[in-house]
Amino acid sequence: MTYRHVALVGLGLIASSISHAMRRAGMETRITGTAQSAASRETATRLGLCEVFETPAEAVTGADLVILCVPVGAMESVAKQVAPHLAPGATLTDVGSVKGGVVTAVAPYLPENVDFIPGHPIAGTEHSGPASGFASLFDNRWWLLTPLPDSRPEAVARLTKFVTRLGANVDLMEPDHHDLVLAVTSHIPHLIAYTMVGVADDLRRVTSTEVINYSAAGFRDFTRIAASDPTMWRDVFLSNREATLEILGRFTEELFALQRAIRTGDGDHLHRYFTRTRSIRRGIIEAGQDTPEPDFGRVGIKRDG
Amino acid sequence: MTYRHVALVGLGLIASSISHAMRRAGMETRITGTAQSAASRETATRLGLCEVFETPAEAVTGADLVILCVPVGAMESVAKQVAPHLAPGATLTDVGSVKGGVVTAVAPYLPENVDFIPGHPIAGTEHSGPASGFASLFDNRWWLLTPLPDSRPEAVARLTKFVTRLGANVDLMEPDHHDLVLAVTSHIPHLIAYTMVGVADDLRRVTSTEVINYSAAGFRDFTRIAASDPTMWRDVFLSNREATLEILGRFTEELFALQRAIRTGDGDHLHRYFTRTRSIRRGIIEAGQDTPEPDFGRVGIKRDG
Repeated sequence: MTYRHVALVGLGLIASSISHAMRRAGMETRITGTAQSAASRETATRLGLCEVFETPAEAVTGADLVILCVPVGAMESVAKQVAPHLAPGATLTDVGSVKGGVVTAVAPYLPENVDFIPGHPIAGTEHSGPASGFASLFDNRWWLLTPLPDSRPEAVARLTKFVTRLGANVDLMEPDHHDLVLAVTSHIPHLIAYTMVGVADDLRRVTSTEVINYSAAGFRDFTRIAASDPTMWRDVFLSNREATLEILGRFTEELFALQRAIRTGDGDHLHRYFTRTRSIRRGIIEAGQDTPEPDFGRVGIKRDG
Repeated sequence: MTYRHVALVGLGLIASSISHAMRRAGMETRITGTAQSAASRETATRLGLCEVFETPAEAVTGADLVILCVPVGAMESVAKQVAPHLAPGATLTDVGSVKGGVVTAVAPYLPENVDFIPGHPIAGTEHSGPASGFASLFDNRWWLLTPLPDSRPEAVARLTKFVTRLGANVDLMEPDHHDLVLAVTSHIPHLIAYTMVGVADDLRRVTSTEVINYSAAGFRDFTRIAASDPTMWRDVFLSNREATLEILGRFTEELFALQRAIRTGDGDHLHRYFTRTRSIRRGIIEAGQDTPEPDFGRVGIKRDG
């Protein structure tokens, strides 16, 4: 049973891509939405993403699926606003990059007759805003759901089916485990990329033009990662503090070992370490999350929305 | 005046791409080459990359341009082998990622009537070997030349013209400055990527499958970088020790400041830091080294060789 009425709270990259993907799938679902900024609401109206309302309360009224698409730090405030207006039996989900913190921020405000099933689509580009979405963003990407102990199985199954129709693969896990996994695969890589870009910017003996011109290898990938939305990432680190600090500790420990190998000229250590990483790369290609082509698998991501 | 006879010592990604790009440019230059491994020599012969010889001495005999395309750690040994066989008036260049170390390793062995002009094409993929090359690898990429005080200007001009015909843009700088710039834009980013992939691999509470499946954002770029040739990278760090240790020191200093901001919940510090990085990204797009498209500018890299 598909949803009759989906409400999008927040109208950025993910929400606008959900709208495009729902239409691509031929869903005749009513779509309502809202965004905090008037400019975003105007853009969403102009693009016909959904019926646009000024407040979360109006946007969610009557919806049987509500998707919170705001930065993690805004979840609590938005939850307070929508909670009194949720329809009995509705499902509430979100798309935040952190799950433990969102559960803590949102769950206390919700009525008992609503199924809260936190979620996280692992897909994105460095672009943001309502004009940045496209229908194929979720194709063959993972969309993790972290149901709570009292989420009804039939509500989880219904949300799973919806997300699958958007093009994604679904996996279920505990919220805390999600946060550890994502600290490794996403949060710490982003923090590191931000740091490296900051170092390059600070270095007076190397000009910005040199950094920019000669960044084809390595650094360019870092700048792409580091161009992501600052507010979203600030919230990620503040709300996934425990796991990020744990992984960061392990990271600096390993980095110091490599630094010592460079200082002492221990080429065997370096070569052994560098050789190990190739198998992980191979695994990623085999898992279909990337390709071995020189374009690095990015050709598949097309704007068609 | 183009070269009559170009010799490629080492037949990996760069050398095979040079061969493809020379033919694409319509050069009728004789191309000879050699590789240490019999398998590489066989592949190069099968692909018709060049006339393949068993030894560097044979490959360089009579060439007016010799290009050393071996890992940085092999430069000294190769220089010793080719030096006695270089034609008077020939130009010798290399494609190593480090320049100071190559100058030290190669220059002492060369006869006075040869122009040594170290070089570094900033282009690559994570693939290696004679079958990995393609003609457009250097298109619109920078090829840095670091002439020595006694390099004749006319020899530099001739090499510049040759490299330009392969599709690259040329810039000249001092060898030591090159090594600092590249430590920032390439060497340290690679070291960091290797480290992060190692951390992910070590973490027992997160399975490899999870790391692989959920790596779409951030980590995937790291694995791509970390899949590069281990021998090449070992040599880079051993021979660019001073600059990499300096940049590494700055990097960990910055990273610790961000770590403290996460621990103390200083959201303003994080947001300010993350906001700064967007301008560098914009600069890279404006410099034409990448595009703002969701495919991250990689579509332009096509195999056509």
